Amino acid sequence: MSPIDTEEDLANPRVTAADLRDAWPVLDTEGRVEGFRHLMSAEAEEFFLELSAFDRAQVVLGLPSAEQRWWLRALPPDDLADVLQETPEEERPRLVELLDDATRREINVLLAYSEDEAGGLMNPRYARLRPEMTVDEAIGYLRRQTRERVESIYYAYVLDQESRLLGVVSFRQLMMARGDARVRDVMAQDLITVPDEMDQEAVGRLFAQHDLLAIPVVDAQGRMQGVVTADDIVDVVREEATEDIQKIGGTSALEAPYLQVGFVDMFKKRAGWLTLLFVGEMFTASAMGHYEHAIERAAVLSMFIPLIISSGGNCGSQASTLVIRAMALGEVRLRDWWRVFLRELAAGFSLGLVLGLLGVLRIVIWQSSFHSPDDASQGYYGQHYHLIAATVFTSVLGVALWGTLAGALLPFLLKRSGLDPASASAPLVATLVDVTGLVIYFSVAIALLSGTLL
Amino acid sequence: MSPIDTEEDLANPRVTAADLRDAWPVLDTEGRVEGFRHLMSAEAEEFFLELSAFDRAQVVLGLPSAEQRWWLRALPPDDLADVLQETPEEERPRLVELLDDATRREINVLLAYSEDEAGGLMNPRYARLRPEMTVDEAIGYLRRQTRERVESIYYAYVLDQESRLLGVVSFRQLMMARGDARVRDVMAQDLITVPDEMDQEAVGRLFAQHDLLAIPVVDAQGRMQGVVTADDIVDVVREEATEDIQKIGGTSALEAPYLQVGFVDMFKKRAGWLTLLFVGEMFTASAMGHYEHAIERAAVLSMFIPLIISSGGNCGSQASTLVIRAMALGEVRLRDWWRVFLRELAAGFSLGLVLGLLGVLRIVIWQSSFHSPDDASQGYYGQHYHLIAATVFTSVLGVALWGTLAGALLPFLLKRSGLDPASASAPLVATLVDVTGLVIYFSVAIALLSGTLL
Repeated sequence: MSPIDTEEDLANPRVTAADLRDAWPVLDTEGRVEGFRHLMSAEAEEFFLELSAFDRAQVVLGLPSAEQRWWLRALPPDDLADVLQETPEEERPRLVELLDDATRREINVLLAYSEDEAGGLMNPRYARLRPEMTVDEAIGYLRRQTRERVESIYYAYVLDQESRLLGVVSFRQLMMARGDARVRDVMAQDLITVPDEMDQEAVGRLFAQHDLLAIPVVDAQGRMQGVVTADDIVDVVREEATEDIQKIGGTSALEAPYLQVGFVDMFKKRAGWLTLLFVGEMFTASAMGHYEHAIERAAVLSMFIPLIISSGGNCGSQASTLVIRAMALGEVRLRDWWRVFLRELAAGFSLGLVLGLLGVLRIVIWQSSFHSPDDASQGYYGQHYHLIAATVFTSVLGVALWGTLAGALLPFLLKRSGLDPASASAPLVATLVDVTGLVIYFSVAIALLSGTLL
Repeated sequence: MSPIDTEEDLANPRVTAADLRDAWPVLDTEGRVEGFRHLMSAEAEEFFLELSAFDRAQVVLGLPSAEQRWWLRALPPDDLADVLQETPEEERPRLVELLDDATRREINVLLAYSEDEAGGLMNPRYARLRPEMTVDEAIGYLRRQTRERVESIYYAYVLDQESRLLGVVSFRQLMMARGDARVRDVMAQDLITVPDEMDQEAVGRLFAQHDLLAIPVVDAQGRMQGVVTADDIVDVVREEATEDIQKIGGTSALEAPYLQVGFVDMFKKRAGWLTLLFVGEMFTASAMGHYEHAIERAAVLSMFIPLIISSGGNCGSQASTLVIRAMALGEVRLRDWWRVFLRELAAGFSLGLVLGLLGVLRIVIWQSSFHSPDDASQGYYGQHYHLIAATVFTSVLGVALWGTLAGALLPFLLKRSGLDPASASAPLVATLVDVTGLVIYFSVAIALLSGTLL
């Protein structure tokens, strides 16, 4: 099975799913649709079901209308809604028209929810039972339901006349119960449900916490709307982590696979943050302007600028990513900020101590091993090298401590203001700390070196 | 329900699960065990099942031996193995001794696998069928199996005499089939399996790709060993993302909740990388040493150092996190490096162009709006401000391009060398780019400013 790289090869009807899977990342939309249409029908279905919602939408949009109908109908309603969410809004009404009446109604309900809330994730088809049924009746009823359109019968939900959720019974429990027992006596009542408007990240946390395979979704009146299953949550957890990682790296979330994002889109997602960071970092030029005289008198000071400000940025980047992730996992809540502050105070101080001592070590070794190009008698950093060492030590300690605290607390500030804590990206923290780091460094230098070097 | 903060309160027998859940993050080990033992037994079981493997291990280790036995036996074997993995190695043999013979055998098999491979995730209890059974026999047989110890009967696996996996049949398919059909004729044969040694990250990708609720695990001889279910994969995907995020932030993976990691442990995980980065960043001091004469002659050059090197770091941090995540999701493979290179070449160039022009704009505005403290007639940056602007523009363009390419390609290099691409953390990329950024900046400055400022 050699990879296929050219469209000529794809036009050849001998395309296998394995070939296409291999070539997929390097094909453009046209090539993908072309390749897909040349799969044998048995393989095509499996291949289609493997694709992400994004790729499915891309393929469907490239097909003629009759084939579109076929592929859309092959999907269960929750997956179908995901695919429609990935199509341009002006295309959706036409695609929805291709569905049968019952599915169209379901899809319109799902599309009314935002993609990232429980209602947008749920499957509206689930197995329903009445509390007064016997176990044998229930098993027979489920057996009939599965012949129709219910995707999953792992759990059956017990509803009253108004569709309010009374309890849940797993298939396993039905099988273990006596045939003449009532469903109401077998079902579990202390079940976990989620409101239809709950954010998908919170739904993901519930799944992780309780190790569940399915959670029912209810509306504000307690009426059951659908079921979210763990396989959908695997995707959600991956997506949410991807968004956080991209934000931590200082990009807006891409919302599509890296190689699929067009150049202009990619540029926009990245240029916005970079411009903001660049403008923020311009304050370093202003800060440096203030200290220009100090640098003119002691150029040696400028040598340590990158080292000192980067220490703050690195410490801040560590602290902010740890806190951002702990928040996303629900390990740290807003009200824990004081505990985090105390921990990071201790961490920042000890880390700053280690780095500061490393800086001193560097100066002492260089001082005794090399000599300045100007004056061979004075060692590398001149006669006042111990004062320079003291300046570097104190500045690194101060900058590391400040960077750590700023990095740890910025996510709390963002969350408190209703923003995404993950926006406290490594580059943002580094930029904040660079400006203040320079002020710390030169203040220390002026305090310690006035009368000698300055 | 007010939160509980003191141990006195916890010694009070009126502790509810809600109270304990609330206080959990701020309690030490002793407080947690104490609180847990004061729960009513019905609540305690539910509470215990909600805890992470890490927390379960912590609680179990604090209990007397008789209670340990009870709680360990409450867990299915895969979860039990996870808990044991979280206990100190010297405690494990004693805890395993508390189990009944059959479970002990299962657990010893699971513990032989590493935590992060398919064998370490799987549940060894699953529903088995023979191919020659009729559907009615199969349903009856499953009904008896569920009374015993099989956790999940959503799928039943069809095995031959040597336990080799022949096919799978969902409960739904059994229910829909005619009672006298043979299992071999109903089962699906083109099923997805994973080898027992497959890395959990790859298993997670398979679940995400195929939207499955369970995947069977087979050994090298094709014999079925157990089942991995989607609820376990939700945890895996979260864990893997957490590790990647922590690495991207420049820390070693914590492997426990943020607030649970002891100070010494936390310090070690962070100090290692920070020290490495600090030593790497020392090269900036060496690079600056080379250009000390240039700075002595034109201190104005030093003003832009943080701005220029941080642009490279920010571009690099964007590119590396995008590529790291795309690799983890399987969107980008090693052999795609050339496509990524070309994309990032274009991205780096256009981003550098934008940032470089912003830098020029800044210099032009400052030049005309402010004046230098030394010489009011020359504007802020002196008579050669256009040369300074040209230097900043060229350097920012060069540094942004270089930072973007270095950030994008470093994860490929790491992966190629068998290392984790996520180690290409934002701080590591920034450090690499800082040193080279200085060289680029001063080389450009010397080329453009010789004869005027230098």
